Amino acid sequence: MKKIHSFARFAATSLALGLTLAGHSSVFAQAIFPIDRAAILAGSKFDFKVEFDRVVDAAKTRISINGIDAAKVLGAEPQFIFNEDGKKVSSFVLPGVMLDKPGSYDVVAVSGNARMQVTWEVYATGPRKAKNVILFIGDGMTVANRTAARILSKGIKEGKYLGRLSFDDMSNMALVGTSGVDSIITDSANSMSAYTTGHKTSVNALGVYVSRAKDNLAHPKVETITELIKRKTNMAVGIVSDAEVEDATPAGMVAHTRRRADKDIIAEQLFFSRADVIMGGGSAYFLPQTTPGSKRKDTNNLIDLFKLDDYAFASTDKEMKQAAANPKTRKLLGLFHPENMDGALDRHFLKKGTVPQFPEQPDLADMTRTAIEVLSRNPNGFVLMVEAGLIDKFNHPLDWERSVYDTIMLSNAVQVAKDFAAKNNDTFIMVTPDHTHGASIVGTIDDNKPGTEMRNKVGVYADAGYPNYPKANKDGYPEKVDVSKRLAFFYGNTPDYYETFQPKMNDPFVPAIKLTKDGPYVANPAYKDVPGAVLRTGILPQSADTGTHTADDGVLSAMGPGSERIHGFMDNTEIFRAMADSLGLAANANSTKMVKASKVVKPVTAAK
Amino acid sequence: MKKIHSFARFAATSLALGLTLAGHSSVFAQAIFPIDRAAILAGSKFDFKVEFDRVVDAAKTRISINGIDAAKVLGAEPQFIFNEDGKKVSSFVLPGVMLDKPGSYDVVAVSGNARMQVTWEVYATGPRKAKNVILFIGDGMTVANRTAARILSKGIKEGKYLGRLSFDDMSNMALVGTSGVDSIITDSANSMSAYTTGHKTSVNALGVYVSRAKDNLAHPKVETITELIKRKTNMAVGIVSDAEVEDATPAGMVAHTRRRADKDIIAEQLFFSRADVIMGGGSAYFLPQTTPGSKRKDTNNLIDLFKLDDYAFASTDKEMKQAAANPKTRKLLGLFHPENMDGALDRHFLKKGTVPQFPEQPDLADMTRTAIEVLSRNPNGFVLMVEAGLIDKFNHPLDWERSVYDTIMLSNAVQVAKDFAAKNNDTFIMVTPDHTHGASIVGTIDDNKPGTEMRNKVGVYADAGYPNYPKANKDGYPEKVDVSKRLAFFYGNTPDYYETFQPKMNDPFVPAIKLTKDGPYVANPAYKDVPGAVLRTGILPQSADTGTHTADDGVLSAMGPGSERIHGFMDNTEIFRAMADSLGLAANANSTKMVKASKVVKPVTAAK
Repeated sequence: MKKIHSFARFAATSLALGLTLAGHSSVFAQAIFPIDRAAILAGSKFDFKVEFDRVVDAAKTRISINGIDAAKVLGAEPQFIFNEDGKKVSSFVLPGVMLDKPGSYDVVAVSGNARMQVTWEVYATGPRKAKNVILFIGDGMTVANRTAARILSKGIKEGKYLGRLSFDDMSNMALVGTSGVDSIITDSANSMSAYTTGHKTSVNALGVYVSRAKDNLAHPKVETITELIKRKTNMAVGIVSDAEVEDATPAGMVAHTRRRADKDIIAEQLFFSRADVIMGGGSAYFLPQTTPGSKRKDTNNLIDLFKLDDYAFASTDKEMKQAAANPKTRKLLGLFHPENMDGALDRHFLKKGTVPQFPEQPDLADMTRTAIEVLSRNPNGFVLMVEAGLIDKFNHPLDWERSVYDTIMLSNAVQVAKDFAAKNNDTFIMVTPDHTHGASIVGTIDDNKPGTEMRNKVGVYADAGYPNYPKANKDGYPEKVDVSKRLAFFYGNTPDYYETFQPKMNDPFVPAIKLTKDGPYVANPAYKDVPGAVLRTGILPQSADTGTHTADDGVLSAMGPGSERIHGFMDNTEIFRAMADSLGLAANANSTKMVKASKVVKPVTAAK
Repeated sequence: MKKIHSFARFAATSLALGLTLAGHSSVFAQAIFPIDRAAILAGSKFDFKVEFDRVVDAAKTRISINGIDAAKVLGAEPQFIFNEDGKKVSSFVLPGVMLDKPGSYDVVAVSGNARMQVTWEVYATGPRKAKNVILFIGDGMTVANRTAARILSKGIKEGKYLGRLSFDDMSNMALVGTSGVDSIITDSANSMSAYTTGHKTSVNALGVYVSRAKDNLAHPKVETITELIKRKTNMAVGIVSDAEVEDATPAGMVAHTRRRADKDIIAEQLFFSRADVIMGGGSAYFLPQTTPGSKRKDTNNLIDLFKLDDYAFASTDKEMKQAAANPKTRKLLGLFHPENMDGALDRHFLKKGTVPQFPEQPDLADMTRTAIEVLSRNPNGFVLMVEAGLIDKFNHPLDWERSVYDTIMLSNAVQVAKDFAAKNNDTFIMVTPDHTHGASIVGTIDDNKPGTEMRNKVGVYADAGYPNYPKANKDGYPEKVDVSKRLAFFYGNTPDYYETFQPKMNDPFVPAIKLTKDGPYVANPAYKDVPGAVLRTGILPQSADTGTHTADDGVLSAMGPGSERIHGFMDNTEIFRAMADSLGLAANANSTKMVKASKVVKPVTAAK
């Protein structure tokens, strides 16, 4: 087990204490973590790191917070790294510190003529308002996904929808900014980290600020909501995804690493997180390398570890439901696929993808119901994160039908949560993307128009009319997706690809491939001979194999106690703050006692 | 003046009263207007029309509302059109009727074995809550426009914006569905009509349901908010746009026509509307054909008519401000351009487009300030519509920089309204697109990357970093748009065009042209030789010369008394209802007396 890395690992990172040597290397920038303008929950833990751009004299270095020695303010002596990673740069680290008192903190580090300054805001929370928090992530969910899901699932006639998605009638809505420290474009690790820690980070990073440390696990950590809940309350935590449970979004609930690809380590961090319910795909990282299909590089069997720790284990829908039916089940691990699970269109209808090999995968709505059932056995409440991870996985390869069926599935999962919340009105529910894609509904494609040029069968404006999908079944899905008049749903940021104007009735779309190992991505010739297919030149760099994320704000919907904070434009770190506030998680807040329901601000509802 | 068409014109449409003749023509569908599921403001006027698909016997026809003869319910005898437009189909029309009592109305029309049925909902309003309503339309404004405007105008550092657009911090937000009766894709006439009448219509139509009538002006009308205000209250009405004032969106405030292109007639309808302030472009339709540049087909001089009716007239920014400075000015016509005005990027910086010919055009923020100044002289309150029309006009030709500068301008205009509203907290403000475009921010384009292939200078994810626009000037605009590292902002639904990866520093972009009169639209060869330009194959039908509208929901922001209705997903007709409700415009509501401010539901604000 020596390769298993716990939360405490960072403090043990090689720290070389030493004396000063003058020296200056202009290759290295200087930095303080947490960064300037960081907003920090009072009483939450973080690693405080100061990186000088040269080797400095510890004795002549002064690090102050609001003019007072940082060691005194934080109650810990800084660890001095004389030459970090063998390079001519010095750093100071105070691991796992916290600030209890709300306010503005000016942090100044001075050594010789090197000087750095940042300002943090430490914020308190009000009294606890919500018993439970459920955060739904529609990964990569774009407005067009939501609109198309409403059209296909609810129907539309003479311009008026015949129904609403479950998250269409929530009291509050906000636009969410998703950019990270390093770039205007985020990935799912970076953006999920903002939701779960209240700190922004950089592409591919989880629960850490990206410093100059060489070791992926040695970057300054910030506390996740899972850690906060487990450290400060007796509440339960659940993590559900239809992607791999070690994938960026579920990993964001627990992980601390510079590199989201460290999935074997993330699987371990999931175990150490003590999350009560963990369900999704990704079993390959839980099984020892001796097991066929394992992606581990050691002989650890994490499933056995979970079982030893009294987790029920399920690998099929049936086992999941059986485990939940046992009233004694309070901890549950469900791993239903070695990799990402299959989407709703494949599981329910087409039976493509890997459905033939894994026919017993549960639906996200059932996983949500099961998670709530198990977690709500904890009388102290719970925090549950549910990711519809495949909306993104299908937006990437421009496979809009699959992404939209999974958006309908998310609506079903949210309905389960709303039904639960309706009983007690003590659950704060949010539904949000973590970033967006360049997708839009342009009109319809009508096979019955004359001619062979498919693009001339695209109808716009009045010529679009309405598509002819059949009325959705009882689960909200149209049972036929390859109808003769269908949505014209296109992506703007693409590699070169063949636009076929058709749903991909076989396996999910693969728009671009490499013809040679080091060559550029080119349009996948497998689709060249689809009748009417058009070669569409991409505007993405030729290193991109699929569509990429966009910086366009996401649309967040919210309801229940805590949702009164959700409005206008919000930075993604404010979503963490909304959760922390609803649960009263700050330093001096009493996080187990709830305010009376009557004192909770009621969600806005329309006067009919 | 006999060609000027007033509101009452419809009732005079050729009605042929006659007796029955058996006859059936399957080419004609049957229909009732208002259509099924129409939501109708109690006491608002509408033309009730029943179209049979055959010639019928009037004596043997029964039209009932909730089982009672329609004539009795509506207090008017139906006019019988024996053979409408000379065709073998009969219709019944009751022009300008209303229903005062809220509730559900089943409308049944039976003649022989022909039978039709629709259901209407008639709704009341509560007491008046708002003194004023200001509706801002960001025409075609898409989430990416809003995000990009925030980036360019406010700046963003380490993932956090350094400021917010003026409509980013409003209390309420909703997604708006924009589809029309005929098609999933709307144009601006159809969607604006939904906002101003509460009734959906079809592409190109304004203030009418699209029936089978041949005459553009003979379709069943529904009452606009301007007509309601002028008929039921002593309030003022203002209409401001930087497009032509006869263009679809401003026209939607007053017009009744099947065809938005009837701009000469719409100019007349603007006059008859008695709107107190009308400002924008489009003077060509106000001037007699004898005046060079006129687009009228008659000798009417509408500007003279307005002047005779005591309107102050302005044709430049200076004249506008002078007119408003006169405390006696209560009615103002401002026409600053024969066609659409120029956008902010051209007017303030590039001096391209038609700015050299028309250098004295006012800015939308100044027009908004002027309109509020004049309208607020009416002690009874006002309804003002302000359109940033050029966001759409520049999204169409994929000219994102111009569309985003105009989005910044909209933010400035909204700030003017917010400053006004802050004084009294009695103004309901909404900011919304009428439809969307297929636009997204993919990353950045960095000229300093090696190589000549521009698409390989597009940075995505971590490689995008941040653009290097200069800090915005005091008006919120960066003074340089052709920076070396700029946003990579692309459109998904395009004709064939050359992507140049550069801002269009000369005139606005013209992506596609026809090489022969009847040929398809092809990529405009004028951009072929821009270094690095890439021919991008479109997915739109080759009849499309620019990008087209999308069905993706729009994002609406709102604040002030009345905004409590704004949340979740809303049909665009509900925006009319929100305005009518805030002003208490229904049948029996006392629309001049306001409820005390203390009784008004306060906007949701975040507990900081």
